[in-house]
Order: sequence, then C-alpha cells, then structure tokens
Amino acid sequence: MSERSVVALSGGVGGAKLVLGLDRILPPGALTVIVNTGDDFEHLGLAISPDIDTTLYTLAGLANAQLGWGRADETWSFMAALEELGGEVWFRLGDKDLALHIERTRRRAAGQALSRIVADVAARLGIGSRVLPMTDDPVRTRVRTAQGVLDFQHYFVRERCAPAVSGIEYHGAERARATPAGLAALAEAQLECVILCPSNPYLSLEPLLAIPAWREGLLACPAPVVAVSPIIGGEAVKGPTAKIMRELGLASSALTVARHYGQLLDGFVLDEADAALAPQLQLPVHVTRTLMRTEEDKRLLARETLAFAASLRRTGGG
Amino acid sequence: MSERSVVALSGGVGGAKLVLGLDRILPPGALTVIVNTGDDFEHLGLAISPDIDTTLYTLAGLANAQLGWGRADETWSFMAALEELGGEVWFRLGDKDLALHIERTRRRAAGQALSRIVADVAARLGIGSRVLPMTDDPVRTRVRTAQGVLDFQHYFVRERCAPAVSGIEYHGAERARATPAGLAALAEAQLECVILCPSNPYLSLEPLLAIPAWREGLLACPAPVVAVSPIIGGEAVKGPTAKIMRELGLASSALTVARHYGQLLDGFVLDEADAALAPQLQLPVHVTRTLMRTEEDKRLLARETLAFAASLRRTGGG
Repeated sequence: MSERSVVALSGGVGGAKLVLGLDRILPPGALTVIVNTGDDFEHLGLAISPDIDTTLYTLAGLANAQLGWGRADETWSFMAALEELGGEVWFRLGDKDLALHIERTRRRAAGQALSRIVADVAARLGIGSRVLPMTDDPVRTRVRTAQGVLDFQHYFVRERCAPAVSGIEYHGAERARATPAGLAALAEAQLECVILCPSNPYLSLEPLLAIPAWREGLLACPAPVVAVSPIIGGEAVKGPTAKIMRELGLASSALTVARHYGQLLDGFVLDEADAALAPQLQLPVHVTRTLMRTEEDKRLLARETLAFAASLRRTGGG
Repeated sequence: MSERSVVALSGGVGGAKLVLGLDRILPPGALTVIVNTGDDFEHLGLAISPDIDTTLYTLAGLANAQLGWGRADETWSFMAALEELGGEVWFRLGDKDLALHIERTRRRAAGQALSRIVADVAARLGIGSRVLPMTDDPVRTRVRTAQGVLDFQHYFVRERCAPAVSGIEYHGAERARATPAGLAALAEAQLECVILCPSNPYLSLEPLLAIPAWREGLLACPAPVVAVSPIIGGEAVKGPTAKIMRELGLASSALTVARHYGQLLDGFVLDEADAALAPQLQLPVHVTRTLMRTEEDKRLLARETLAFAASLRRTGGG
C-alpha cells in the first residue's frame, strides 16, 4: 500500500487520458481508478467492458491512439472471417482485443467477479495503479431517443450517436453495490483527493453517480472532490457530450457540467477558453489548459489538478 | 436435390481427404458427409467442433495444409494476447478460425441446433456437398489411460496422444439421435453407396457407430457400404490409430479395421502394401494406392471407391 492515495472516477477515452497522467506521476499503488461499467454489454456472446478495457490498455501502454479504442498494432483477421460467415460486424473487435473478452467471458461464466478479473489482468499487464469497475453488479446505460430506447453501444457505436437523446437511463444502478475496495479508498485517512475525470458527465460518470453508495461515499468523503471539465469553449474534445447537452435542452457549457455535479464538488478545473465563466461557478476554480494531446499534457494537467485539490484540502491529512 | 446420392462417414483430417475427392468428382448436392462430433468440446467458453470444421475448411478450400487443422493464411494475434493474459493456450485457435467458434457458440446459446449452424456456414462458404454433424445431441469421446479418463482433446492435443489407451468411451452415444437428414439419406432409393472414410475407426467413426440409429440405418441400408482402410502396411498415415490398436492389444493391421466394422461392410478398399491380406478379409476387396498426397490422389481414390461400390450394388437402382 502506497503512502499516498488518490481516487479518480473515469469513463473511457477522455477520462483515461487524465488517468494516464495521474498514473505516470503518482507512485505505484497510489492511484485508484473507478471505472464506469454502464457501457458494458454482451456481444457475440462475449462480455465486453469498453471503458474498463480502454483504461487497462491505456495504462499498460497498449492503447490504439489512432482509433481511440482497442489495442495498438492490432490485426483484424477475426472480423474479416466473421463477415465472411455473415456475423455481426458493426462492433469492431480486434484479434488481440478478443483475448481479453474471451478470457473475461470464460471467467465470468465460472462465477468470478469482474473486479477480480480486472485486478488479475491489470497485474498481468504490469499496471501499478488499482483499476476497479464501479460495481460487480449489472448496470446498463440506455438512451431514450426518437427511435426508442437504445442500448448504449447500439446508440454509441451502431448508430454513431446520431439519434437525438431525450433521456438517459441507468438500469440497475439503484440496486447496484459499489465496489468495496473503492468505497474503502474514499474513506481512507490518507486520501488526498477525488478527481472526476473529463469524461462525459451523462454517459460515463452518471452511471456511477446513480449508484447510491458512490454518491453517499463521495458526499461523506473528507478529501476534496474536484472535477475536470470535459467541455472546452462549449464543445467536447471528442464524443457526443455537447450534442447530448443541447438535445437535453442544456447549455453546452462547462458551467452546466459543474452544476450537474453540484454539491459533490469542492473545486472545478476549467479550460482557459472558458475563464470568463469562473465567477459564475460559486466554487473554487482552477483555470488551465485542459486539452491533452501528448503524454506530457496529461502529466501536466494531472499535476495541476492534484496541486489545486491540495490547496482545497479540508482536513490536515496527507 | 441431385439425381445422384453418396453418403460418406468421416472424422477429421484423414477422412476429409477422401471427402474432398468425393466432393470434387460428384455433382453439387450428391454427397452427404456425416461427421464425427465426439471430439467436440467446450474450451475458453467456446463450442468447438474440430472434425466439422476440418471438413468445412477442407471443402471450402480454406484448410491449412501445413498444420493439418485450422485455416490457411491464418494469423495468431489472439493466442499471443491470451498468453500475455495468462490464459490457456495448449489448444491453438487462429484469429480467422475463432470467427467460426464464436459464431457457433453464440448461435448454440440462442438455441440453434449444430446441424442448422453447419448448414448455414457451409452455404456461406460455397460448399456444394451437404455436411451434417452425426447428431445434434452431445456425444463426448473419452479415453481411458493410466493417467485416468481424459477428455478427447486433452488426450489428443494437450497430451499429444502420449498416454497408453486402455479403453475408449462414447458418452451420450447410446441416447443420441442420429441427424434426421443423414438417416433419410441412408434410406434414399437413389443412394449409390456409403463410404466409411479412412478415419481412425476407434476415435473418429466409432462415436458415430455407437449411436444406435446410425448402426441400424447402416445395417438396413440397401446400398453397399464400403470402408477405405486408414492403415497402410500396419501403420496409420497420420495420428495415433496404429498406436492405439497396439495398446488395445489389437494387431495394427487393415484386417483388424475390417473386422472391427464387421457385418456393416459390403466391401473394403485395401492399400497395395497390404494386398497379401486380401484373402483373409472374407468380403469383396479392392486393392489400390490409398495414400492421398495431392488433390489428384484424392479424386482418384474417390473415383475408384465409387466404382468398386458400384460393382457391389445389391439393388438395381442408380
């Protein structure tokens, strides 16, 4: 167990960038990443956990930077052969990536909890940080659209986020149990801060926040809770965050994100482009460059966010 | 439906060579291949049917001639990644090959019969002959050895046939239902002959013959039943047939194979190397070169076997 302790809540790609920065600047074992599993689904009979896998591949240095998902140096023989057989190919699974899905599916069928499988894979891949699924129970994000209620991956990948969103449901969240090791991390005396990574607030972090134990754990947490805005100048860096906000009748602004998290937050990291919004936030704000292109950008934003949180620390610990 | 009709019973590699020859010389739809499924197993959560797949890949021109199993031009990214994750890698699954296992597993889980899945895949791959699993019910070949009773693939692949065999069990065969379309083919008026391909009699064809309906159907079949010897000069071309025969206390001879099939047979195709055994066989014999190296060898042996069977025809049909 590291002397230091930081908790990050994250979804997929956007959040994983900051997670990578945190992982690289913190000592091994100091960072606990709690990852959204509302995107998980069964496809081709396989148990797929997109945000977990993006996090694992990112931290292991195996992520495909070009695609933004899956593994680097991937091959696609499986997909080509599946297409030949008339199988479903709208969700692309690389040959290397398949190993993780098949191994997870096999172990889930044998009764192993997702958290245990993720811990073993993280160890195998040499990841120093602790990666936890938000829950071992099934939570499924579904998107209400004019085409009806869509399973998340059907909305996100198959329909490429095209249908207008009128609402989002987090099936199972109300009954789901928060991963015990993650809840324990929130209550640790040496916890420095909790960071809500720049993931989609509605699709990636809300499934977690919809689990009562997480919300309670965050409200009770003695360390400062800080969010990094996923919105820069009214737009998302990647993905449908801004589009969804507009479809839900919300201003696509960092302000909306901060208000969404509301009383959970002790501080907010805002992009330079949105500096003018700071006075309206009614909570401590750190303004900086939040766009993360290089690994150096990620480390810098991680370092600034930790320093900002330290300045907010309510308890004397650390 | 073709005017002609030939039924072949086959296991994996050895049998599939003759099946290929038959497929290539007969008109599309004339050949029905009934394939052993006693080797089928669950591995990594996937439903794997090795003999079915060898037959499909062989007829589709996709088989890996170097390996003797799996697909040509295969890639192995999945296995490498699985090994990295600490998964089981003793049974090699190529990236392209995986598509068939995953698709079959998905469709089996959705309640589809293996025979329907095989028919669809055969159509997709442009196979003209009809490929049928021997049954849609589970039959599992197990091998009794000094190391205990081993599942077939554990004996065959993991242990590389090294343990001495003291007996072979065909779990489920007694209760299994023969595939109806195959049974119907055995009773068709235009059936020319049934060919027992040069597969391992104990590991590949006996699982089928241990199903009561197949044995009865063969005994009642009005067309001649002819076996092609898998033993040449006391040895198997490939695989453990001769080794197993010796371990079971049997002479590793074509004669033993013919006696094993016993009253099912109306004729036997013997290799030139074993011509001297012909007088001891007590049934019509055709002596020829049975080693199949090239596709031309396969077509020639198929043609000779069909001609030999035609000479034995008991009914006037055809």
